[in-house]
Amino acid sequence: MTDTPNVSTDDEPIRDVAHLGHVELLTPRPDESLAFFTDVLGLREVERRGQSVYLRGWGDHYLTTFAITESDRPGLGHAGWRTVSPRALERRAAALEALGCGRGWHEGDVGHGPAYRFVDPDGHAMELYYESETYRPTPELRSTLKNQPQRYLPHGIAVERLDHVNLMCADVTANKEFMMDHLGFKLREYIELDSGVEAGAWLSVTNLVHDVAYTRHYLGKPGRLHHVAFWLPHREDVLRSADIFTEYRVPIETGPSKHAITQAFFVYVMEPGGNRVELFSGGYLIFAPDWEPVRWSEAERGTGVYWGESLPDSFKIYGTPE
Amino acid sequence: MTDTPNVSTDDEPIRDVAHLGHVELLTPRPDESLAFFTDVLGLREVERRGQSVYLRGWGDHYLTTFAITESDRPGLGHAGWRTVSPRALERRAAALEALGCGRGWHEGDVGHGPAYRFVDPDGHAMELYYESETYRPTPELRSTLKNQPQRYLPHGIAVERLDHVNLMCADVTANKEFMMDHLGFKLREYIELDSGVEAGAWLSVTNLVHDVAYTRHYLGKPGRLHHVAFWLPHREDVLRSADIFTEYRVPIETGPSKHAITQAFFVYVMEPGGNRVELFSGGYLIFAPDWEPVRWSEAERGTGVYWGESLPDSFKIYGTPE
Amino acid sequence: MTDTPNVSTDDEPIRDVAHLGHVELLTPRPDESLAFFTDVLGLREVERRGQSVYLRGWGDHYLTTFAITESDRPGLGHAGWRTVSPRALERRAAALEALGCGRGWHEGDVGHGPAYRFVDPDGHAMELYYESETYRPTPELRSTLKNQPQRYLPHGIAVERLDHVNLMCADVTANKEFMMDHLGFKLREYIELDSGVEAGAWLSVTNLVHDVAYTRHYLGKPGRLHHVAFWLPHREDVLRSADIFTEYRVPIETGPSKHAITQAFFVYVMEPGGNRVELFSGGYLIFAPDWEPVRWSEAERGTGVYWGESLPDSFKIYGTPE
Amino acid sequence: MTDTPNVSTDDEPIRDVAHLGHVELLTPRPDESLAFFTDVLGLREVERRGQSVYLRGWGDHYLTTFAITESDRPGLGHAGWRTVSPRALERRAAALEALGCGRGWHEGDVGHGPAYRFVDPDGHAMELYYESETYRPTPELRSTLKNQPQRYLPHGIAVERLDHVNLMCADVTANKEFMMDHLGFKLREYIELDSGVEAGAWLSVTNLVHDVAYTRHYLGKPGRLHHVAFWLPHREDVLRSADIFTEYRVPIETGPSKHAITQAFFVYVMEPGGNRVELFSGGYLIFAPDWEPVRWSEAERGTGVYWGESLPDSFKIYGTPE
Repeated sequence: MTDTPNVSTDDEPIRDVAHLGHVELLTPRPDESLAFFTDVLGLREVERRGQSVYLRGWGDHYLTTFAITESDRPGLGHAGWRTVSPRALERRAAALEALGCGRGWHEGDVGHGPAYRFVDPDGHAMELYYESETYRPTPELRSTLKNQPQRYLPHGIAVERLDHVNLMCADVTANKEFMMDHLGFKLREYIELDSGVEAGAWLSVTNLVHDVAYTRHYLGKPGRLHHVAFWLPHREDVLRSADIFTEYRVPIETGPSKHAITQAFFVYVMEPGGNRVELFSGGYLIFAPDWEPVRWSEAERGTGVYWGESLPDSFKIYGTPE
Repeated sequence: MTDTPNVSTDDEPIRDVAHLGHVELLTPRPDESLAFFTDVLGLREVERRGQSVYLRGWGDHYLTTFAITESDRPGLGHAGWRTVSPRALERRAAALEALGCGRGWHEGDVGHGPAYRFVDPDGHAMELYYESETYRPTPELRSTLKNQPQRYLPHGIAVERLDHVNLMCADVTANKEFMMDHLGFKLREYIELDSGVEAGAWLSVTNLVHDVAYTRHYLGKPGRLHHVAFWLPHREDVLRSADIFTEYRVPIETGPSKHAITQAFFVYVMEPGGNRVELFSGGYLIFAPDWEPVRWSEAERGTGVYWGESLPDSFKIYGTPE
Repeated sequence: MTDTPNVSTDDEPIRDVAHLGHVELLTPRPDESLAFFTDVLGLREVERRGQSVYLRGWGDHYLTTFAITESDRPGLGHAGWRTVSPRALERRAAALEALGCGRGWHEGDVGHGPAYRFVDPDGHAMELYYESETYRPTPELRSTLKNQPQRYLPHGIAVERLDHVNLMCADVTANKEFMMDHLGFKLREYIELDSGVEAGAWLSVTNLVHDVAYTRHYLGKPGRLHHVAFWLPHREDVLRSADIFTEYRVPIETGPSKHAITQAFFVYVMEPGGNRVELFSGGYLIFAPDWEPVRWSEAERGTGVYWGESLPDSFKIYGTPE
Repeated sequence: MTDTPNVSTDDEPIRDVAHLGHVELLTPRPDESLAFFTDVLGLREVERRGQSVYLRGWGDHYLTTFAITESDRPGLGHAGWRTVSPRALERRAAALEALGCGRGWHEGDVGHGPAYRFVDPDGHAMELYYESETYRPTPELRSTLKNQPQRYLPHGIAVERLDHVNLMCADVTANKEFMMDHLGFKLREYIELDSGVEAGAWLSVTNLVHDVAYTRHYLGKPGRLHHVAFWLPHREDVLRSADIFTEYRVPIETGPSKHAITQAFFVYVMEPGGNRVELFSGGYLIFAPDWEPVRWSEAERGTGVYWGESLPDSFKIYGTPE
């Protein structure tokens, strides 16, 4: 098809990871968590296997992008990154293997094929894979829009799709550099405290501001989940979700409001298993290949909210597992 | 920085073009067009040179993304694509040169460096370049948001940024294949008439559904502009823009409404020079590296509007120059 | 409670009618109509009696505001107006009785007490009543908002409440004058054709622009229903409803768009029984006691849509029963 | 016009006040306050007289609804209520005169005729009047919408119209009863503390939830202004206003968020003169003539915000003058 060579060389950036493919969440209260994600958030169940239930939003391209797994404690199960090609998967697996953070190949799971497992410096479990099952709706679930994977079902909040994951960690810089150097993530925004310590970093391989963020745990505990985030198409959907959360007596931790960093219009709640969940809309896209990461000083970071409210203390200290 | 080789080979896709960098529009009524783009759309003038005025939206990353140039007839001046690196620029220039559609190097223009000019099969003027001037606001125009290039100015409709360009052409397929094969664009959606003729194609190098679209001219006239599009962050902004257009007596051709293809929430107007301008919000993003282009048959394309209205005939037959 | 006399005299305006209390709709397809109003619009059933099913929106103050009744043909069953007091009801009943358009007292119905029935000059059935049953939610349906009659249920479009009724008639002027002279309605806007004939009139007893509208039937047929309208709190809800209607394959007649008259942001659909239903948001409120009715000439009425689209012919000629 | 008697008697409620007509605000920094109200809020100046500047929103029906007057201290100048008729004005003036809280007739001011001045039990200056000057736009300011008093000007936040006034007072109950008994206001919602003391009351003569509210000053200081409020048509406008306030470095006291009481979607800022200003949208309408006031206990009132944030202390203790 292509008549011209596309010769890349070693000094060009890694572009092997395509996007965040799925997130697995651990919950000690699986029934209540499932009810939350299906009845309130409006995700649909697509399969059960072992202790896991696999879910999807109406706008998710793949069969499943989110799973909840029964566990003693809440937290991140793992995050799955899809590569741009089978060869890209091989390249990244080899690199991670050489680096010593690899955990070997896994045969795959509901919705995707063989995956190479690894951990980030903080110990968060991740995997890379290429083969994915695109969602094929049954006739009843087919949308009148051919470019929409599934019909919009007016049930609950009806989040559109998985968006990103925010990981609490002991050392932001180490994790950030790992994701940049070995997986090709680009740094988009970061917080540098007056002490020189990095308090947060937002990174992406897509045009989004973040596919993953690292937030520093104030006590230096490693491997925590700060939150998993789902996308809503409009800010009005976020406002509507706050009404629905309140009617369902789901405690809102903070929001709806607007972050300065990422410009996200957010609301954060705690799901019954104890994990923090964000719904958001808005934000901005990055197209420049030479984007200069936006540095926020301790003073500039301010309260974390653009319009002047303050994020509650829990937002800064609570991750799962506690 | 990178410790692992990123060896690509010839059979991997071209990924050299980063995004649409700027669009030049020709207008026979430059003063009225300028008033439209600044007073009504709310773009800001950044420089004048020769017969051109260079403009920017508050959310545009670069110094300028849009220029209007006095001309006998309306239409597209040219579209400028930024590459991911200097080397990528060299690769693409060499490939286009070999192909025979190149028009040679140009020293650059307001906001960008050396550019390699070429034409698509239909004759639309385009250029590739890498060096770009990131916008640096004066203190008065600095936003309270560090990640926003310029403060939001509540003046006119206040479009955020340039989004895409839609080109009317004699042969959609030829142009589509050119953009895919030689510039690395991916086909996202297309219309195939019952006759087998392609009536439209939407392509992108980013996560957007389209950075460029090709629409077939019903009489087979080549080299026309269908429209240039600007982004608004919320559907409410598009609704508000329709009120403003009406108060300014700018004729609305169609909308606000929602396209099935691209899912854009749109409004189309004619600027004083005669060119069609779209403001839009919404749509969806594509992350899958193996996206299957969405095919719309003649019947499925329908009226072009998701909710049942019909696009007016002018939408199908009018491009600039006429 | 009041220490000062409130002496009104004959030349002060009638202020006896408080608001539109309920609307009864006739349908030849009761099961499908019921499914439409409950599953798609999101009204809740509160009772069945005879051939009627009584419904309510989550924001309706009263037990029920809307009923569908099985009938050979679609159309308006009747419109019920609540008075400001028992005495106001007596006054109006006496006046209508004297006028000869009364149809006598009825013992009441689900949700309200004794009603005086009458017909407008065109023959539309109406009634006046005072005693009403305020909705008292069961614990499961109690909102976390004490000032909201029922919790918001994220099911279907979830219309908030009944808003107004638009009646097609043979003679707009006669009906308008009847509502003004005998029921105290105020004229808010009207269309006067070049021929001097009145083509439409919008009237209210509240701060709304219209509690009732009269639209001229192009062939002079009397007693038709043009549409019944439900309120949605935000324009985004109307946009969302259009997606839901399309997914449910409910034909959208026109919209979402904005009327010039009333400034309503509307969408119109046909319910399975054949009646036209409007969902809308926006508009404006009238507070001035000496409001000058807004006159629209034939030219100013234009296409009926503020932003330039045209209402379809069906909108002008179709009412129920046909 | 009316063929039937409209005999009211003493025991029917007073219905003499039509709506809030205008508010005068005092400011020690008139130039900065004027710049705030015109440049940031987007009100238009219509006249200057003495130490006052008279303003209007694009959706205000009357020539002017808001004035700022230079003064040593910030606070409420006065609130003006329009009556439903000249006779209603006479009735209310006589009643207030008899009550001893009258301050006599004033010849009128920009935009309205003779006014009867009085004070509420707390000492807030008010007036009643009937004659009002409806706004007549110049051709350049005429809207393309005949039912809109003035064209929408896309400048600043562009608030639509004056909405209500919230008065801080020593004794909520006394003021509430005064407004109900002598001016015909209806109580819509109120807060009753565990001590039995009333902490707030929301009252209206229109279908709005409040034309005026009384809030208890925590130290019992009388005659303060809590805030004056302007209406924005959509919640998105309130969100947009928060961005604009932030860019103009206008301190946001709280919001955007949603009150439980009144359901208003609000944002509060301090204007340069020190007075609190609310912009809001949303809320609900009341049509029932026998509305039961919604009682909020101390616990139910909670934090004052529906979604869980807390109003800042300043909101509870700060009024003007301090």
